[in-house]
Amino acid sequence: MKKLAILTGGGDCPGLNAVIRAVVKSAHQNRIEVIGIRDGFRGAVEEDYKLLGIPDVSGILPRGGTILGTTNRDNPFAYPTLIDGKLESVDRSDQVISQLQGLGVEALLAIGGDGSLSIALEFDKKGLSVIGIPKTIDNDLMATDLTFGFQTAVSTAQDALDRLHSTAESHHRVMILEVMGRYAGWIALYAGVAGGADVILIPEIPYELSKVAAAVKKRADSGKKFSIIVVAEGAKPLGGEMVVERNLPGRIDPVKLGGIGAKLGEDLEILTGMETRVTVLGHLQRGGSPNAADRVLATRYGVAAVEAAIDGDFGTMVALQGQKIVRVPLTEAVNKLKKVSLEEPVLHVARKLGIMMGD
Amino acid sequence: MKKLAILTGGGDCPGLNAVIRAVVKSAHQNRIEVIGIRDGFRGAVEEDYKLLGIPDVSGILPRGGTILGTTNRDNPFAYPTLIDGKLESVDRSDQVISQLQGLGVEALLAIGGDGSLSIALEFDKKGLSVIGIPKTIDNDLMATDLTFGFQTAVSTAQDALDRLHSTAESHHRVMILEVMGRYAGWIALYAGVAGGADVILIPEIPYELSKVAAAVKKRADSGKKFSIIVVAEGAKPLGGEMVVERNLPGRIDPVKLGGIGAKLGEDLEILTGMETRVTVLGHLQRGGSPNAADRVLATRYGVAAVEAAIDGDFGTMVALQGQKIVRVPLTEAVNKLKKVSLEEPVLHVARKLGIMMGD
Amino acid sequence: MKKLAILTGGGDCPGLNAVIRAVVKSAHQNRIEVIGIRDGFRGAVEEDYKLLGIPDVSGILPRGGTILGTTNRDNPFAYPTLIDGKLESVDRSDQVISQLQGLGVEALLAIGGDGSLSIALEFDKKGLSVIGIPKTIDNDLMATDLTFGFQTAVSTAQDALDRLHSTAESHHRVMILEVMGRYAGWIALYAGVAGGADVILIPEIPYELSKVAAAVKKRADSGKKFSIIVVAEGAKPLGGEMVVERNLPGRIDPVKLGGIGAKLGEDLEILTGMETRVTVLGHLQRGGSPNAADRVLATRYGVAAVEAAIDGDFGTMVALQGQKIVRVPLTEAVNKLKKVSLEEPVLHVARKLGIMMGD
Amino acid sequence: MKKLAILTGGGDCPGLNAVIRAVVKSAHQNRIEVIGIRDGFRGAVEEDYKLLGIPDVSGILPRGGTILGTTNRDNPFAYPTLIDGKLESVDRSDQVISQLQGLGVEALLAIGGDGSLSIALEFDKKGLSVIGIPKTIDNDLMATDLTFGFQTAVSTAQDALDRLHSTAESHHRVMILEVMGRYAGWIALYAGVAGGADVILIPEIPYELSKVAAAVKKRADSGKKFSIIVVAEGAKPLGGEMVVERNLPGRIDPVKLGGIGAKLGEDLEILTGMETRVTVLGHLQRGGSPNAADRVLATRYGVAAVEAAIDGDFGTMVALQGQKIVRVPLTEAVNKLKKVSLEEPVLHVARKLGIMMGD
Repeated sequence: MKKLAILTGGGDCPGLNAVIRAVVKSAHQNRIEVIGIRDGFRGAVEEDYKLLGIPDVSGILPRGGTILGTTNRDNPFAYPTLIDGKLESVDRSDQVISQLQGLGVEALLAIGGDGSLSIALEFDKKGLSVIGIPKTIDNDLMATDLTFGFQTAVSTAQDALDRLHSTAESHHRVMILEVMGRYAGWIALYAGVAGGADVILIPEIPYELSKVAAAVKKRADSGKKFSIIVVAEGAKPLGGEMVVERNLPGRIDPVKLGGIGAKLGEDLEILTGMETRVTVLGHLQRGGSPNAADRVLATRYGVAAVEAAIDGDFGTMVALQGQKIVRVPLTEAVNKLKKVSLEEPVLHVARKLGIMMGD
Repeated sequence: MKKLAILTGGGDCPGLNAVIRAVVKSAHQNRIEVIGIRDGFRGAVEEDYKLLGIPDVSGILPRGGTILGTTNRDNPFAYPTLIDGKLESVDRSDQVISQLQGLGVEALLAIGGDGSLSIALEFDKKGLSVIGIPKTIDNDLMATDLTFGFQTAVSTAQDALDRLHSTAESHHRVMILEVMGRYAGWIALYAGVAGGADVILIPEIPYELSKVAAAVKKRADSGKKFSIIVVAEGAKPLGGEMVVERNLPGRIDPVKLGGIGAKLGEDLEILTGMETRVTVLGHLQRGGSPNAADRVLATRYGVAAVEAAIDGDFGTMVALQGQKIVRVPLTEAVNKLKKVSLEEPVLHVARKLGIMMGD
Repeated sequence: MKKLAILTGGGDCPGLNAVIRAVVKSAHQNRIEVIGIRDGFRGAVEEDYKLLGIPDVSGILPRGGTILGTTNRDNPFAYPTLIDGKLESVDRSDQVISQLQGLGVEALLAIGGDGSLSIALEFDKKGLSVIGIPKTIDNDLMATDLTFGFQTAVSTAQDALDRLHSTAESHHRVMILEVMGRYAGWIALYAGVAGGADVILIPEIPYELSKVAAAVKKRADSGKKFSIIVVAEGAKPLGGEMVVERNLPGRIDPVKLGGIGAKLGEDLEILTGMETRVTVLGHLQRGGSPNAADRVLATRYGVAAVEAAIDGDFGTMVALQGQKIVRVPLTEAVNKLKKVSLEEPVLHVARKLGIMMGD
Repeated sequence: MKKLAILTGGGDCPGLNAVIRAVVKSAHQNRIEVIGIRDGFRGAVEEDYKLLGIPDVSGILPRGGTILGTTNRDNPFAYPTLIDGKLESVDRSDQVISQLQGLGVEALLAIGGDGSLSIALEFDKKGLSVIGIPKTIDNDLMATDLTFGFQTAVSTAQDALDRLHSTAESHHRVMILEVMGRYAGWIALYAGVAGGADVILIPEIPYELSKVAAAVKKRADSGKKFSIIVVAEGAKPLGGEMVVERNLPGRIDPVKLGGIGAKLGEDLEILTGMETRVTVLGHLQRGGSPNAADRVLATRYGVAAVEAAIDGDFGTMVALQGQKIVRVPLTEAVNKLKKVSLEEPVLHVARKLGIMMGD
């Protein structure tokens, strides 16, 4: 192994720089060169590269974002390309492969979530050796116990809950915090348990509005004249539809047009007669310095990915299982999301504490 | 002086507990009893009191919220009262005065912003001696250089800007943060300077949308493919109207229906063609542990208010002027808001740094 | 199961209150009463108890410390007792058992590290049913992957490293941070990886001073005129003795007389000629609000301990294995410490990054 | 004005980068070039310079340390110089002036405390135009209400007090925090008030040990079985000598050999019989991201210094008086330290709260 390439794809996530640093540092120990590809797969098509030396990764461990840039658009298998003055979707994957192989790149380390890793898997099938590194604040990637970024997002949401708690109690209000999680409720569940929420609503358990209102009122009747509710953006009422699509690439985030938090707030205010306020945590969950746990996890993933590349164990993703880093086939990681199951131990714990889970 | 009463009114604000603690501790040193009134002026009408001893204020210094509770409704001069089965607005101020004086209360310490202090002033005029303590995260109260709570809110907004910065840079996006400030842009101005914003929009300077878009594009053309914009909730385009009323008591915060941040984001995305994301900081600005500066300021106000009461210097508000705590007539503090003037030094500094101020 | 008792023993640790809250809340769901014993086993002897209701645990989740108090002295099997005016060590364990059983206590939940859990095990053998809950910031307890408190301590140490980093770089200095870990280097190892340390010294790997100095000089020669070193308080030079005992109960912490950090600093300054500064993190690692991960873990332990009690699965400790909470015999947890093994994955990662581990 | 030079001198301090950024950005707006001098006055002698453009200051606002490097040694008026193989102290100031003037530098902006600004003043007297910018975490510089860095140091110390508080209360201990302040007690005073200390000991008020012990015992007798003490490193017992010099350049910090905190801890443990623990905050006070207040203040200073340079108002220091930035003669700022006076309002507040001040 003489040369690797690395790219970061998808939404921003705390720990991206920690992975890049670990890859460059451990590659350097093995006299392997690392080429950084800018802005995810866009840079792979556009030949926007940079050789990454130790000075490039010095001091980046605590920083949010990615020094390589990222995007959640731009799939080389359907790449927007100007043809005869018209923008068409063109398969540029062969070009990417020949460009990278022409540079002597023996493996591509792709840091991403379900979207980016699915593209990476297609490249691996076509002959560009790939190692995946599991990234998403949502923690909804299959085949790994944890993605990096998740634990920092949970900390951010828990800190927000701590803040809302004092206002809720002082004002005798219902405070709702809407957190990320379109398809899986991991952030809501963990942050809710860590932040002392009274109600946690997740996409996996459609909520019964009348029961939520009853729980809030029961608390008020018992003297606790406030409630803290965490709702994942993808939660929905029983029998209802997902209220609104959001975070669509290339559009303004329609969260401001009223997401599930806003709807729930209006509904609860009407049903309980209690003042209700809604906060949408939004992009604050994606930025900021990764916490210690994510720095360690991201660093472990980066080192393990270089080891997998050296071993020639391609088409795999590094993953956490228990306390160990293992390698799993990329095919097991993508095209399916890891949701909160009814047997999830932290869900069990939430119920045992008396947290209302919507049902 | 044998007995004081204290209440906290208006919106939640970091440092309320620090004031209460300072009042109780310094009163205790002077053998003065302190009666805590619950939920602002509501408790004054409803005789919802509690004698506050040293144990009651032990450990509350770092905590957000108020142990006394607060509300931004309930004016005793127009108090919602059931009469013959109908809810009518009744002047209950005489009752409040006779109740408190009947308990031996010689002065009322009112912690609040413009609304609560206006009510307090009316009580002072009617014979219930009052000392005001200036509280609002917006810092828009006249006659004082600083209200407590403001510096913590600025820290919270600056931290949010730090987080958004890494995402903006990694994704080549325009990131907009909407902060509080319906009538005055203090939080936006200070947080924008502290958080390295490229554009700061405040109510005092109606913004020219085309110029804002041009500034963002000019940055992009010069290689900075991202911009950070802080917008106060009360900012408005030149010639435009305030987009939407919000934070109305008793209603869901209409911020979720789309405030100025959302509108600006849509406008800018259309005008610049750059991806734009909007975050509304909302109630996160009001909660959480007060920072060191607010704890010191709140403590100074609490001690100074007890001293003013002992001196019999009623109808005044304690205030910061320069580095000193002084007393000013309550009449100078209320019924007018302190806005960011065109001579404000920090505004001058923002312009000197090249920050776009909307005009 | 009708009644439980709970106590917290040993040094302060973030998450103690989170466990207490989880125990009380989940016991309450099962209509089990919880008696809180004050100051660890001292309260068990002195009959210093308190019935814990839901209001007692309201709002304590984010708080450091323990509402029950704790001590790292006072073993009921050798309890300091005044006899004929002389302080003698007396076995008061029978008295403790009869007192608690007289109150109807069916099980004792003991939250502690090796010391407190060893005492708890003795009680279990004598007939007082016990469930252990693993607590120590050092993470050196056998039979569990994680103790609660550890992850917060790592965060605190990582934050300190972030701070020292900027000074080290600006001043071209060697900065040494001494962290806790008398017998095991978990905090140093994890914080060192998370905080970007250049050298990590742990008790398990006696360090060769000349090699450490050479690593620092090699960095300086390559243009990095600063180094960050994390040293566990129990680290020692190859062939050397443990420099100084510290944290002895009842004595001033002799850290101020010069621990391993100070000694290492003097040695390195002499050997490298570079300015060196030493910071001893000390008690800052034990206090403060538990982070989200520790709040979730502590809560899981609390709920699991109540379940174990209900199941009558006594003489066990709740433990984390992988991502699951399991029960292990208390005999497996105590009387032996979990040290960093040479196969430890994070140690492996540190070496792969080029971190100097002392050897 | 076409060209400025800037240097940072003395100990590390949060906000140095914020000043540099503000200077470069506002100079750039006025088409003035800025030359950065590395490592304080060392770089001025050694001609170690770098032209600073906008990209150099991009992203540095939140970062601790200084991109220019600093040192608290190396005075060009007595510069260690090898002459005939011997290291002698030589006046190299003329050389510095001719070098800088040869580059076209019209003014030197010196960011420093008493030491660096005294050197800067000497340069100004010799004809190199100088503007001073007041920097020290100790806040002990004359002629300004605040130096930048102080408010962040206070926050750091207050956060440490919050952490120690929970341990103190849980363990019924006396916790001592030693903070910086060799000659002036500003950090101890402000952090003590903000962190809820029971005793604050500062250099300006020699403490009576027996009275301190009595205060701690009185608290314990009244049921508060713990106390929090903040002690400035330069505090000393009445009639006693300063225990130990520390922070001597070029030597290991002798704090680890036992400073005033350690001595006080031993004394109090003996006198009160209560367990006592000592934490020395040390270099943690100097590092880390500047808080919002320091970022704003540092930015204001940077902009104001460029304005003073443009105005040709040399030999001055920018300073805060009240809420305004003014210019004061450098001669008023140096050679004398600003100590906590007996009329200091925050000292008054501390006493009114019942905080024991050592006398």
